[in-house]
Amino acid sequence: MRIGVLGGGQLGRMLGLAGRPLGFTFTFLDPADECPAAIAGDVIRAPFDDPAALDRLAETSDVITWEFENVPEPSAMRLAESRAVHPPSRALGVSQNRLLEKQSFARLGIPVVRHAAAKDEAGTRRALETIGLPAVIKTQRMGYDGRGQRVVRAVADVAPAIAALGDAPLIVEAFVPFRRELSVIAVRSRRAEIACYPIVENHHADGILRRSLAPAPDLAPALAAAAERYARAVLEDLDYVGVLAIELFETDGGLLANEMAPRVHNSGHWSIEGAETSQFENHLRAISGLPLGATAARGVSAMVNLIGTMPDLALLLAAPGAHVHLYGKTPRPGRKLGHVTLRADDRTALARALEALPV
Amino acid sequence: MRIGVLGGGQLGRMLGLAGRPLGFTFTFLDPADECPAAIAGDVIRAPFDDPAALDRLAETSDVITWEFENVPEPSAMRLAESRAVHPPSRALGVSQNRLLEKQSFARLGIPVVRHAAAKDEAGTRRALETIGLPAVIKTQRMGYDGRGQRVVRAVADVAPAIAALGDAPLIVEAFVPFRRELSVIAVRSRRAEIACYPIVENHHADGILRRSLAPAPDLAPALAAAAERYARAVLEDLDYVGVLAIELFETDGGLLANEMAPRVHNSGHWSIEGAETSQFENHLRAISGLPLGATAARGVSAMVNLIGTMPDLALLLAAPGAHVHLYGKTPRPGRKLGHVTLRADDRTALARALEALPV
Repeated sequence: MRIGVLGGGQLGRMLGLAGRPLGFTFTFLDPADECPAAIAGDVIRAPFDDPAALDRLAETSDVITWEFENVPEPSAMRLAESRAVHPPSRALGVSQNRLLEKQSFARLGIPVVRHAAAKDEAGTRRALETIGLPAVIKTQRMGYDGRGQRVVRAVADVAPAIAALGDAPLIVEAFVPFRRELSVIAVRSRRAEIACYPIVENHHADGILRRSLAPAPDLAPALAAAAERYARAVLEDLDYVGVLAIELFETDGGLLANEMAPRVHNSGHWSIEGAETSQFENHLRAISGLPLGATAARGVSAMVNLIGTMPDLALLLAAPGAHVHLYGKTPRPGRKLGHVTLRADDRTALARALEALPV
Repeated sequence: MRIGVLGGGQLGRMLGLAGRPLGFTFTFLDPADECPAAIAGDVIRAPFDDPAALDRLAETSDVITWEFENVPEPSAMRLAESRAVHPPSRALGVSQNRLLEKQSFARLGIPVVRHAAAKDEAGTRRALETIGLPAVIKTQRMGYDGRGQRVVRAVADVAPAIAALGDAPLIVEAFVPFRRELSVIAVRSRRAEIACYPIVENHHADGILRRSLAPAPDLAPALAAAAERYARAVLEDLDYVGVLAIELFETDGGLLANEMAPRVHNSGHWSIEGAETSQFENHLRAISGLPLGATAARGVSAMVNLIGTMPDLALLLAAPGAHVHLYGKTPRPGRKLGHVTLRADDRTALARALEALPV
């Protein structure tokens, strides 16, 4: 089967490497000069909204998907006129708009943080009267890896925050103290089978994911069940096919859904070695009409992103249970260059391995 | 690091796919029109003894290895003049000659079947006087997948057997009743670290491996230790770097070494999912000077070769814990088209999964 992928980054690279053993071939559409996915298939170098390039992708693919959630929804809709496109294009529309995303969660009974829409400074001030301080002001669109958001602790912070975010529709969210960040990765097949990976604990710094622990240590079973229920609700509501990630906050009052990513997700990379079937293989199984593979964890895993600079490969591989995935990118501050997954049979061994890791 | 590989079959393909995440690039030298490894790197299409092609491989590689043990030893030696070649070329010479192979085992104190060299029919008859009947007559060179051998049960079988084998130096071996066939896969790094995978039980039909069980069920610990000792002895004797496989017979009198393969091996394919680090990754770690990864099994695995015809992919993937690896080959009787590994937490679950597998 020929898989077309919008986006040719590391997620495309790992999708391609996961699909090769199943006999799949890949074409990636990506505007970048150098594209991590190029080692795993052909590349059409063009903007995501180039009609001729989209048509070429459709011609060379049996099924189309994406690995980058800021793909324009109209591009996915154009492809869907002639080809099976999974996940559904409307998942892009929802996930690209923080307000729509929260409204969708809320409509499905999934708890979200208190929030309100705002158009400008006056609207933001009005919103803050109901939301309270501190709060987070975010652009409704184009936010990822911590971009497009500002924390305001006092009314005086509002004007500079809005100036920094630019002239764009906003969402004002209560600043919620949380115990930790979690994510749930789930997959739904064309046959409407659903499988959930164990819930993951995530650690961010400067808005970028640094480390994930899978399964999330000491998670109350009721919370794990709730997270899985939320994922199922979104998958079924959207008649979704493929892998979906939902980021959650664990608070004293339970889980709050923060955002969704309608694609394979950085917090699911551990599944390559740490689960029976990786998120990448399961995404491909789902969109190609194959049965899903088991999502159970094999022992415990820690995934550590390699950001900005590349540590010595030999030192990384010397850590017990270390598996290294490099993305073929030139080092640059803040850039995800690769990741290491440490897999162990228990948490004590995993902690020891993490200590041995030079990251 | 740029890895050059003599041979571009499925073993090269799986080496390439294992090396991509580590940032390695690959060039394969192979005479065939279509080459399973082509998806994982560049291909130089030429015979294994083409000097210009060998020089081109050397130019485009930092380290050279092979995935096919019938590579001419002089080709490996030519490459070794300008590049690091692992395993050592002399491992080819030993493994390509069944007599030399048995003599090497014997010299290291590794038990082998009773055997004698023979040049012709008269010599074979003389050899049979000491070896006894039944016996197996084999060509000394170019034997794999059951080729180049004939069983003789009576003196009258000798002439037709020799006619079938052609005019070539022979080895006459006692026909040993054995309980089962086993193999040991071991790896030695450039730093002289050695790691052994759990011993594997192998099932052949028509001289072709059909199925491997890893770890070999109910293997006496003393036999497992002996197999590992034999592998270490060969690795150290040859100052070997890379993965080595030794096929063994388990008899009432203990283990007998049958043959060695100086490369990644079909009976080690289960390690992709069934061991902490696959034989392919460990071969690459070894030859590139990186530390070895753990070789411990994760649960129990069965590897089933897909031979001749391709079963329905969806049915294969529906078996619990199934992982499918296709080699991109056109189906042909007797041809290895791919393999399935079933991984489970215990033998009962594995047996159930094997029953569900449509192979």
